[in-house]
Amino acid sequence: MSIRRIYNFSAGPACLPLPVLIKVKEDFMEHGGMSIFEISHRSKGFMDICEDAKARISSLLGLDASFEVLFLAGGAAQQFAMVPMNLMDRAADYAVTGRWAKRAWEEAGNIGEARVAFSSEDSLFSRVPRPGEISLSEGTSYLHITSNNTAYGTQYREFPETGGVPLVADMSSDILSRRIDARRFGLIYASAQKNMGPAGVTVVIIRRDLLGRSYRKLPNIFRYKTHADAGSIYNTPPVFAIYMLRMIVQWIEGEGGVAEMEGRAKARADVVYGALGEDDFYELLADRESRSMMNVTFRLQSDALTERFLREARALGMEGLSGHRTVGGIRASMYDAFPLEGASALAEFIRRFRRTA
Amino acid sequence: MSIRRIYNFSAGPACLPLPVLIKVKEDFMEHGGMSIFEISHRSKGFMDICEDAKARISSLLGLDASFEVLFLAGGAAQQFAMVPMNLMDRAADYAVTGRWAKRAWEEAGNIGEARVAFSSEDSLFSRVPRPGEISLSEGTSYLHITSNNTAYGTQYREFPETGGVPLVADMSSDILSRRIDARRFGLIYASAQKNMGPAGVTVVIIRRDLLGRSYRKLPNIFRYKTHADAGSIYNTPPVFAIYMLRMIVQWIEGEGGVAEMEGRAKARADVVYGALGEDDFYELLADRESRSMMNVTFRLQSDALTERFLREARALGMEGLSGHRTVGGIRASMYDAFPLEGASALAEFIRRFRRTA
Repeated sequence: MSIRRIYNFSAGPACLPLPVLIKVKEDFMEHGGMSIFEISHRSKGFMDICEDAKARISSLLGLDASFEVLFLAGGAAQQFAMVPMNLMDRAADYAVTGRWAKRAWEEAGNIGEARVAFSSEDSLFSRVPRPGEISLSEGTSYLHITSNNTAYGTQYREFPETGGVPLVADMSSDILSRRIDARRFGLIYASAQKNMGPAGVTVVIIRRDLLGRSYRKLPNIFRYKTHADAGSIYNTPPVFAIYMLRMIVQWIEGEGGVAEMEGRAKARADVVYGALGEDDFYELLADRESRSMMNVTFRLQSDALTERFLREARALGMEGLSGHRTVGGIRASMYDAFPLEGASALAEFIRRFRRTA
Repeated sequence: MSIRRIYNFSAGPACLPLPVLIKVKEDFMEHGGMSIFEISHRSKGFMDICEDAKARISSLLGLDASFEVLFLAGGAAQQFAMVPMNLMDRAADYAVTGRWAKRAWEEAGNIGEARVAFSSEDSLFSRVPRPGEISLSEGTSYLHITSNNTAYGTQYREFPETGGVPLVADMSSDILSRRIDARRFGLIYASAQKNMGPAGVTVVIIRRDLLGRSYRKLPNIFRYKTHADAGSIYNTPPVFAIYMLRMIVQWIEGEGGVAEMEGRAKARADVVYGALGEDDFYELLADRESRSMMNVTFRLQSDALTERFLREARALGMEGLSGHRTVGGIRASMYDAFPLEGASALAEFIRRFRRTA
């Protein structure tokens, strides 16, 4: 069987590991006389998958039993609301480093007082804060950061020190792509569709003591505690998305874990940044010290050139390279499953395009 | 290729149409050099699928442009909260006809004053209200009903008259299984995993004028209007679940639409109720005039007999027949994709078991 695969540089949903896709397809109808879409969420088979996926995520992140892993629905955007609903007493601090960071901050403002602890909006979100640049406000319930900003191609190298204040991170676009000290976080959330799976499930990792916080009357479905108490099966979860997420997490483990993913991400990013940085033909959007290993963003000198770049790339089997519609230019997203050959192909094209433009 | 298929009587996730499963599997990797899990939610291909699915649901239900179809995440349980968050001013009426109806009522109590307009809890939810049995309370924002109650096997034949008060229905377990006058409802919601698709997406059908209601400050993500304004792509939706839901809705259309589904449901239910009702060996749980065409519930004379029934049924390739864990006994769920032969096989076994027990 030959499978045609393009290089998919999309920001998410994104490229997934081919061996996992092949296995999912092979096993499609082979779940005890049912397809994978028809198995019960209360079957032992599925509950084991769910628990196994949690345990593997926990282990890949080096976490112990003081953290709970939850599988929720609604994407990171739902977490923009659930985090303040659950964890904000009166006020919380937000580092506004991009479009989604800002949405998280705006949504928190619908719950309580959302404060701007840092903003790079003036420089079109070209950077994340430097160590020590954020000072926490009096009475803040947590600091919220966005570890990687897909639209601008920025990423934290070091995370802010917050002392006793819980650090909360949207890691949708770089979870399981690099080594971090996850124990420093109070809560991490990540939609699956970049590094971990298909769209439709969001991973929330919460320090158990935070499950006890309760500042306001909430619907049960929006309480983290409800889902923790029910082992993420409070109601019918997105069965298939969790099944596939677990296979991808297994794949990450099998390939060598987060350290290996980090090595691959660095290799891919180095190849592409290397090709871009040879002269001033391409304008990089992110400040050097904030550059993302997941999303490389740059601009050409005119819209016509951008169009031509995208068209010629597409003809070479490279898709999803358009910059975010609010930013323009080019964006190359390369998550855990993205092959190094795709990065090399892009780098080669970047060089050739410069010569022929 | 031979495919082993059991008869899957699960209450949901449930049996899906085999032709759809085969097609999904065939096309799995054939989405322009990507798998279906890797396509962008902002691609024209997916946005067309999403719009097409909405249009087909609207047409199957006989609705016009005064209704909006939304695809949301979080299951019916999330709608238990979103309905009162969006539509309840001070109070709302609930018909408590089962476990999920009660959960909807309880969740509404976390938002405002949730009133019990009817309850059959005293008779273990053996029935739904008779026409005229519900009287609406002063100042209610809506009446909430659960059109089919899976755990007890009850279903409304006629829906309550509510005059100018919006009628809101959880139709998770019988949407698109029978002809209804959907225009009489202010809001209908249904998780997909019974009659329409895999777990992971919930359909909400809302009368457009209700989108303008706003009684309290809400997070944007929990406002129906946010999702309507964004065409259900406010944030990354569960792409695959919507893709598959659309194929199932297409299948329903191709088979003859809701009228044909109703005929099949009636045929299946008649076969099973017929076999059960021949004497007193089996105790039916639902009152005759409330019997569901989707879920047939009954009890045997002892737990030992129940165990034996389940074991022997399983040996014959009939699975998912255990009653809901809070109810016990036997439950046969037969949604749109469930084949008549499965109902006949069960009926035959019901008769044989009576003879040999």
